[in-house]
Amino acid sequence: MKNIKLTIEYDGTRYAGWQIQENHPTIQQELKTAVEKAVEEEINLIGAGRTDSGVHAYGQVANFRTKTSIPGDKAFYHINPHLPEDIVVVRSEEVPLSFHSRYDALTKTYHYVIINGPHMHPRHRHYAQWIDYALDLEAMREAGGFFLGEHDFTSFMAANAGDVSTIRSIDAIDIQKEGDVVEIQVKGRSFLRNMIRIMMGTLVDVGKGKIPPDKVATILEAKDRQMAGPTLSACGLYLMNIEYGEEQK
Amino acid sequence: MKNIKLTIEYDGTRYAGWQIQENHPTIQQELKTAVEKAVEEEINLIGAGRTDSGVHAYGQVANFRTKTSIPGDKAFYHINPHLPEDIVVVRSEEVPLSFHSRYDALTKTYHYVIINGPHMHPRHRHYAQWIDYALDLEAMREAGGFFLGEHDFTSFMAANAGDVSTIRSIDAIDIQKEGDVVEIQVKGRSFLRNMIRIMMGTLVDVGKGKIPPDKVATILEAKDRQMAGPTLSACGLYLMNIEYGEEQK
Repeated sequence: MKNIKLTIEYDGTRYAGWQIQENHPTIQQELKTAVEKAVEEEINLIGAGRTDSGVHAYGQVANFRTKTSIPGDKAFYHINPHLPEDIVVVRSEEVPLSFHSRYDALTKTYHYVIINGPHMHPRHRHYAQWIDYALDLEAMREAGGFFLGEHDFTSFMAANAGDVSTIRSIDAIDIQKEGDVVEIQVKGRSFLRNMIRIMMGTLVDVGKGKIPPDKVATILEAKDRQMAGPTLSACGLYLMNIEYGEEQK
Repeated sequence: MKNIKLTIEYDGTRYAGWQIQENHPTIQQELKTAVEKAVEEEINLIGAGRTDSGVHAYGQVANFRTKTSIPGDKAFYHINPHLPEDIVVVRSEEVPLSFHSRYDALTKTYHYVIINGPHMHPRHRHYAQWIDYALDLEAMREAGGFFLGEHDFTSFMAANAGDVSTIRSIDAIDIQKEGDVVEIQVKGRSFLRNMIRIMMGTLVDVGKGKIPPDKVATILEAKDRQMAGPTLSACGLYLMNIEYGEEQK
C-alpha cells in the first residue's frame, strides 16, 4: 500500500467546484475517475481545498492510497491521459501513509485577480473580476492590514456556511498592480466559506472610497455578514499553493 | 454622413476568424450586426486585419460610414450591449470620410504567446502555444534578426495563399520571457497568410536547436514553404495594435 500526493492545476470554469456532487461535473469526480483508470482500482481521493464553482487552481493538492506498482513520481504520467484538457496533474510523489492532504495543510495561498479598467478584456471574462472604478490601492493595502492575525471572521462568511469555529488567521495579504491587472494574494491556514471573496468585496469597497480602511476592524468586531462588502465573483479566485511540514514533503 | 473608427478586443476561440463567411460565426458578422442595431441602418464594416480562426485581438480596428446622429466617441456605448461577451469595442471615434482601416494602416503589431514548461496551464489552453522543450531564447533572438527589413516571404506563407506580392517588411521582433511565458512581438506593415505563425514555428525550431539561427537567411532565400518550420497554433496569436498616420487619428 502506498499514499500518493498529487499537485493539480485546473480551469474551474465549467465545473460545480471541487467536491463531488450528483448530476454536476466536479474536479474531484474527474480526477477520481482518471486516477482509478490509471491504477485500476477504486480509490478514495482526498482534496486539500474545496474550491467553489468557477474557482481555478494552480496548486490544488490531493492524495489517495493505492496498491498500484506505478512509482509515485511517475503516477501523473498515467493519470493525465484520462483527464479533460481543463485539469492537469503537474506533479505526483509518494508520501508517508499518514499524510492527509486536508488535515496536514499548514497554509494555503490564494490569488484574487481584478481587471481594473474601463472595460473587461474578453479573454479574461472567466478568469478575473472586472471593476471599472479606479481603485485606491494604498487605501486597500491599509485596509488589508486589519485582516492580519487571528480574528472571528463571522462577518466574512457565507450566511449558510455553518462552520463549527469562525476563528481564522490571516498570515499575509499582498496587493500588486501591473497595467490594469490587480492581483491580491491572501495566505492563511484555512478559510471559511466565501471568506476570501467577501474580504475582496470589502477591500474593493475601500478602494472605491465607500468605506474607510479602518472600517474593516469594525466589521470584524460586528460579527455580522451584512456589515461586510459583496461576495466577488468566484472566477477571479485561484488556489495557488498549499504548504505542508517537512516530514510530509 | 460620418465615418466611425472602432478599436476592438476579442477572444477568438469560438469564431471562424474575422471575415464574414456563411454558416460559421465570425467576429465581423457579430460586430456588423451589433453596429446595425446601434445605428439602425445597414452598414459596410471594413476591418484592418483578417485574423484567422482562433486568433485573438486587443487592438483590431474597423470603420464604417453612417448617417447616425450618435457622436463618434459615444458609438461604442451603443454597440457593446448588442455584442456577445467575447467581443468588446473599447473605443470609437469619428475620423475623416476618407479613412480606410485596412488601406491606411501603417503598421500592425502582433504578439505570440508560448507556455514554455513541462505542462500546459489549463487556463491558457485556448490562449497560448505549449512547448515543453526548454527554448534557447538567445538563439531565437539571433534568428529573429534575420527577419528584419524587407524580404520575399514566400517560404513563410500558407501554400494556398495566392497573394499578389510576397515581399513584406518586418520592423521589429522582440522576445521576452517571464516565468514560463514567452512573448514574441512582431511589427510590420502587413503580413502574408499564416506568415507570423510560420515565422514562430521556425523560431521555435531554432530555440530547440533543430536549426541554427542563420538558417533563417537560407530559408528566406529558398522561397520554399517546405524549408521553414511548422505553423504554430492560431490560439497563441494576438493582434495588439494598429498604427495610422497623424491625419487619420
